[in-house]
Amino acid sequence: MKPKQPDIQANPDNPTSALRTLCEKSHPAVAAEALSALEAAAAWEILRDVTSSLRAEIFSHLAPSLQVSMVGALPRADMARLLSDMPPDDRADLFRRLPEESRDAVLPALAEAEREDIRRLTDYEDGTAGAVMTSDYATLAPDLTVAAAIERLREVAPDKETIYYSYVVDDDRRLLGFVSLKDLILARRDATVRDIMHKRVIFARTSDDQEDAARIIQKYDLIALPIVNEDGALVGIITHDDAIDIITQEHTEDMRRFMAIAGSAGADGYLRTPVWKHVQQRVGWLVGLAALGLISGLIIHKFEATLTQVLILALYMPMVADTGGNTGSQSATVVVRSLALREIGPRDTWRVLSKELQVSVFSAAILGLLAWAKVTWLSQGADLPSGLTLTNIALVIAVALALQVVTATLIGALLPLAAARLRLDPAVVASPALTTIVDITGLLIYFYTARWALGV
Amino acid sequence: MKPKQPDIQANPDNPTSALRTLCEKSHPAVAAEALSALEAAAAWEILRDVTSSLRAEIFSHLAPSLQVSMVGALPRADMARLLSDMPPDDRADLFRRLPEESRDAVLPALAEAEREDIRRLTDYEDGTAGAVMTSDYATLAPDLTVAAAIERLREVAPDKETIYYSYVVDDDRRLLGFVSLKDLILARRDATVRDIMHKRVIFARTSDDQEDAARIIQKYDLIALPIVNEDGALVGIITHDDAIDIITQEHTEDMRRFMAIAGSAGADGYLRTPVWKHVQQRVGWLVGLAALGLISGLIIHKFEATLTQVLILALYMPMVADTGGNTGSQSATVVVRSLALREIGPRDTWRVLSKELQVSVFSAAILGLLAWAKVTWLSQGADLPSGLTLTNIALVIAVALALQVVTATLIGALLPLAAARLRLDPAVVASPALTTIVDITGLLIYFYTARWALGV
Repeated sequence: MKPKQPDIQANPDNPTSALRTLCEKSHPAVAAEALSALEAAAAWEILRDVTSSLRAEIFSHLAPSLQVSMVGALPRADMARLLSDMPPDDRADLFRRLPEESRDAVLPALAEAEREDIRRLTDYEDGTAGAVMTSDYATLAPDLTVAAAIERLREVAPDKETIYYSYVVDDDRRLLGFVSLKDLILARRDATVRDIMHKRVIFARTSDDQEDAARIIQKYDLIALPIVNEDGALVGIITHDDAIDIITQEHTEDMRRFMAIAGSAGADGYLRTPVWKHVQQRVGWLVGLAALGLISGLIIHKFEATLTQVLILALYMPMVADTGGNTGSQSATVVVRSLALREIGPRDTWRVLSKELQVSVFSAAILGLLAWAKVTWLSQGADLPSGLTLTNIALVIAVALALQVVTATLIGALLPLAAARLRLDPAVVASPALTTIVDITGLLIYFYTARWALGV
Repeated sequence: MKPKQPDIQANPDNPTSALRTLCEKSHPAVAAEALSALEAAAAWEILRDVTSSLRAEIFSHLAPSLQVSMVGALPRADMARLLSDMPPDDRADLFRRLPEESRDAVLPALAEAEREDIRRLTDYEDGTAGAVMTSDYATLAPDLTVAAAIERLREVAPDKETIYYSYVVDDDRRLLGFVSLKDLILARRDATVRDIMHKRVIFARTSDDQEDAARIIQKYDLIALPIVNEDGALVGIITHDDAIDIITQEHTEDMRRFMAIAGSAGADGYLRTPVWKHVQQRVGWLVGLAALGLISGLIIHKFEATLTQVLILALYMPMVADTGGNTGSQSATVVVRSLALREIGPRDTWRVLSKELQVSVFSAAILGLLAWAKVTWLSQGADLPSGLTLTNIALVIAVALALQVVTATLIGALLPLAAARLRLDPAVVASPALTTIVDITGLLIYFYTARWALGV
């Protein structure tokens, strides 16, 4: 439930001043939402006039693309002012996204310390803990008394992302321990920080994956996680709110991969996106799959003589293709999930293939038996070319289907493992493209088995 | 990175005492992980001897199923002791999961206030903010001075989930405002809480969806979100760590639905799950889909005479089936995604169908044209029954395929909307079952179009 909006009706003739009031009176996240509806230039009109710290806060809540287009149009001095007011992690993120000419323009206008901070934070590879951490954290010397430590936190509080956790460091900024503000409030005022600090500190390294860092915050219910560099020196923290955002972002990416066939989601929502744009986003996949399907078409065409001779084979083509698609998608999904849960890695390829082979032999036996029963029942009394019996043909179809189950299962397992080994996303292959690929193998198996066993 | 483990090698002859030391010296999350490897009875052996507050903390970190089996075996007095030491939200969750006889046994052994607390928290419907909130939050009277407020927080700190946010309430527990511990530390010591409190409080209601509450915490970067009942009285808070867990849980559920065909994931991980168990988890889907496929088989069988007469029609059956599967999955995925993003709801059924109809007409035109070209090229020079030309047949196949694209798109869009209207999960239909369903419509359209247009 949002807090009540300030009464922006108070000044109905002047929407600009009404929006400015909203920016001053609402939570920055709400103000950012309201400004997002405007063009970049109009939004800046409003933001320009609010106090500089609030301006930076609201700006940090805007969508990255809007941030970039707003900043791109600013005079250099305004851009530098805004950047120096922003929290270091958001500033570094924005900087990473700016076009090179804007970066080159604004850097000389910043103070030395901020330039250095940006350089340091943008140096870390995207997706690492180093790239998402902030450098605004509170540190305490071990020999401070509790009273002096609280006094120090009062002084630095306005500039720090959180003062609820403070980190105790030595002269080389190596992490000695941490104290929470709760510890400080509860402790005797003349105790030292060293006396009360927790010496076992949970931390992550700048090179760790951002999701691993977020999961540590989740596991230990932390408000912030300290990040150390390769020398063991404290260089930043990741806070609980960043952890939620990282986890949500990974979730969104996972879903996007699984929904690849839907094309990208329009920014305007389903109903407001025009029909031609829906078509544009979706038709590519369909045409691509139709093109892949051409290969199946060529194979069927090549075996047209066989089908003319034994029409009954044509009737069961769709069954073989469907079964292959289902078993292939299933093993691909199992392997993608196990990779995501880190139960297996690309190194386990042979162990996974051996297990999938065993699983597929069972499935093949069951599905082959069902196929045999289906053909025997549906095609009883069918006209057959001389020399062939329904029993023979049903057996051939069942064997081909069983072989296809094994092949499709192995292909479905292999593709995500190969993608993972090539450092691609395993989920890209657990998609309709896989179905189309195993269609092709299915038809080849089907026709060659029939030719060889029936001599047609 | 975990903190270093305490040196449990110190006592190699006595694993029980080594584990007890680990429980006492490690983070409760780590201790819980170590205990999870044991049987319930053995784990309780260890837990019984650590201090009662630490015991409750470690216990709260255990998996719910292990909690239930451990508690079920305890004498009533131990069970009551453990429950009263647990945080109220975790306690209520556990209570909800206990079998009725355990509940009835333990309730009389608890203090009146705890009984009341459990009754109140377990009253809320699963999945609501009320069901996940905790009742351990700090409140302040508005007329306290800042110094008195900090003193009060020192007193209550050990029992509260967080003291970083305190809520200011009137005599009816109605929410007047909130102050953070940072505000209190920064304020003049003789100011009153009323002077410094934030009057616009972001809150949620007990009946709100738990995910909505978690998203508010995420949006406003909160450490805790206050929850009020229908009378507007403060009854609990949801903390930042619960928000991460809720978001992760919703994510896991989303992925499970999308991976339905893979069966449920085994608790032992991919490689340690035996082959027969993999088969057991997976073969049901495959057999079910094969059974659905029987309907397609019956349809094909019914039109066998048509296929015998115009064999070329049999060659393009797989193309029509595949194209229907692809377009149906695509529109189902688009609609499931838009439902998940709340861009549309079951009320928009007609608007969605009208839009999908328009989109599908475009796709049908493009894919129909491609199919026409494919047939014309692949089957040039094919033997045709007298009276039919390849141009005619290609046209008929293209028209049938176009009709199938429109039908499959509409079915794909309609099924998730119908599921949402019936309060089922829309994602269950965006699965291989859909492909099998549109196969059936595709074959019917294909054969009836051919019969009608070619008179065969």
